[in-house]
Amino acid sequence: MPFEYKTRVRLHQTDAAGILFYSKIFELAFDAYTEFLHAHGVGVGYIINTTEYRMPFVHAEADYLAPLTVDDLVTVVIRVEKIGETSFVLKYDLSTASQLVGRVKTVHVTVNKETGQKIPLPDAIRRGLQSALH
Amino acid sequence: MPFEYKTRVRLHQTDAAGILFYSKIFELAFDAYTEFLHAHGVGVGYIINTTEYRMPFVHAEADYLAPLTVDDLVTVVIRVEKIGETSFVLKYDLSTASQLVGRVKTVHVTVNKETGQKIPLPDAIRRGLQSALH
Amino acid sequence: MPFEYKTRVRLHQTDAAGILFYSKIFELAFDAYTEFLHAHGVGVGYIINTTEYRMPFVHAEADYLAPLTVDDLVTVVIRVEKIGETSFVLKYDLSTASQLVGRVKTVHVTVNKETGQKIPLPDAIRRGLQSALH
Amino acid sequence: MPFEYKTRVRLHQTDAAGILFYSKIFELAFDAYTEFLHAHGVGVGYIINTTEYRMPFVHAEADYLAPLTVDDLVTVVIRVEKIGETSFVLKYDLSTASQLVGRVKTVHVTVNKETGQKIPLPDAIRRGLQSALH
Repeated sequence: MPFEYKTRVRLHQTDAAGILFYSKIFELAFDAYTEFLHAHGVGVGYIINTTEYRMPFVHAEADYLAPLTVDDLVTVVIRVEKIGETSFVLKYDLSTASQLVGRVKTVHVTVNKETGQKIPLPDAIRRGLQSALH
Repeated sequence: MPFEYKTRVRLHQTDAAGILFYSKIFELAFDAYTEFLHAHGVGVGYIINTTEYRMPFVHAEADYLAPLTVDDLVTVVIRVEKIGETSFVLKYDLSTASQLVGRVKTVHVTVNKETGQKIPLPDAIRRGLQSALH
Repeated sequence: MPFEYKTRVRLHQTDAAGILFYSKIFELAFDAYTEFLHAHGVGVGYIINTTEYRMPFVHAEADYLAPLTVDDLVTVVIRVEKIGETSFVLKYDLSTASQLVGRVKTVHVTVNKETGQKIPLPDAIRRGLQSALH
Repeated sequence: MPFEYKTRVRLHQTDAAGILFYSKIFELAFDAYTEFLHAHGVGVGYIINTTEYRMPFVHAEADYLAPLTVDDLVTVVIRVEKIGETSFVLKYDLSTASQLVGRVKTVHVTVNKETGQKIPLPDAIRRGLQSALH
């Protein structure tokens, strides 16, 4: 079962053109990612405050299929696309009740927080991602 | 000469990991895009308030090459990558004084604001983009 | 029973100082306000898309009692402080499990969306606010 | 001469009601505050990355006098209202070419970054604020 996150489009995520501002799709995806990590036992705050690694984004992209507007109920479904030695790839489908409205893809690497050098995926992250594959 | 926009990374664009939050690179690109449009005689507000067309994003992507942090001075250089019948593509290079830190690409279509149907690029937009090619 | 809204502080609401960026407390309050309106049968999108009135903020203020950081679970409790002829006042207490961390107050007026002139509170709004008083 | 900061309202600072989202007035004020600090020789990044103190907001408030919309050119004028032992108060007037559109007030305390305990205003901050008084 892929991980699902449900949310409502907030007024502050829309703009004067009446729709979701384009960068905000990455906030919706990130909020889903945050809850996905928590569901697999790893909090963003935990990583930042207590570990020696970071998982920065090295690539992000979005396709916008239909406009979203204020109060739209959105379901974000996350799938683990790839688990590498020092990186992983996530895909997110965003839908309303009636249609697929957008797709997001993010690529992350794991690095030492001090040196910024790539390191193998920490066990907690690898386990979480692998359990999300099934 | 490509269009340049200079800005400073704001504290509210960073996060508790100490760097620019990933979605904010699209805000930096958008602020450059806004000034680029103004430099070519077309304001975002003008389009929204007085015209029958919109130029929604249908795709956006970013590559993150080096972290940005608060107070970093960033130069965004915009290049027109492609001018189609009903679409255009922009590329943005983001640099500090010492290095290239990110690349952004956005794809826009022109649509009728009521129907959402694709329409040919309005003359003002086509002229602005073409003058930016040279 | 006052209205309660629970949320988690997102990484993009924090900054490089490691805490909630000061303006984001107003986003947390607004998200609670949005759900409060929905609970009383009035959506923000409904107001914007179908009615002739708006409820702009004329004043907002916050007291910061303790720092919030990423992943903190926050409960926002909303109370209707005053219902006037053409205005209303809301108060929001923000707490974690262990302490009160902030207070927000917002003052709204009801105006005609075209003229911007003050108008009496629409019935749906007055009823919603009054039911929240008890 | 009070400190002035000029900016343009960005599309991502507006919402589907067509105006500046209420919390964004605090971003405009903060951007002015950032440049004000730089003008007095103290960067936000410098404070966060190299000093033992922080200057958290303990109170913030805004009065909204007229709506702002996308592309509006805004001038923010900052005045130092009060310099205390362990705190200071700033006031910000936001104007377009034609009118005063909003007022913001922020209250800051200086604290030790580890303990969170109040400390006297660091010399660099006191000097900067005092020079802004004249």
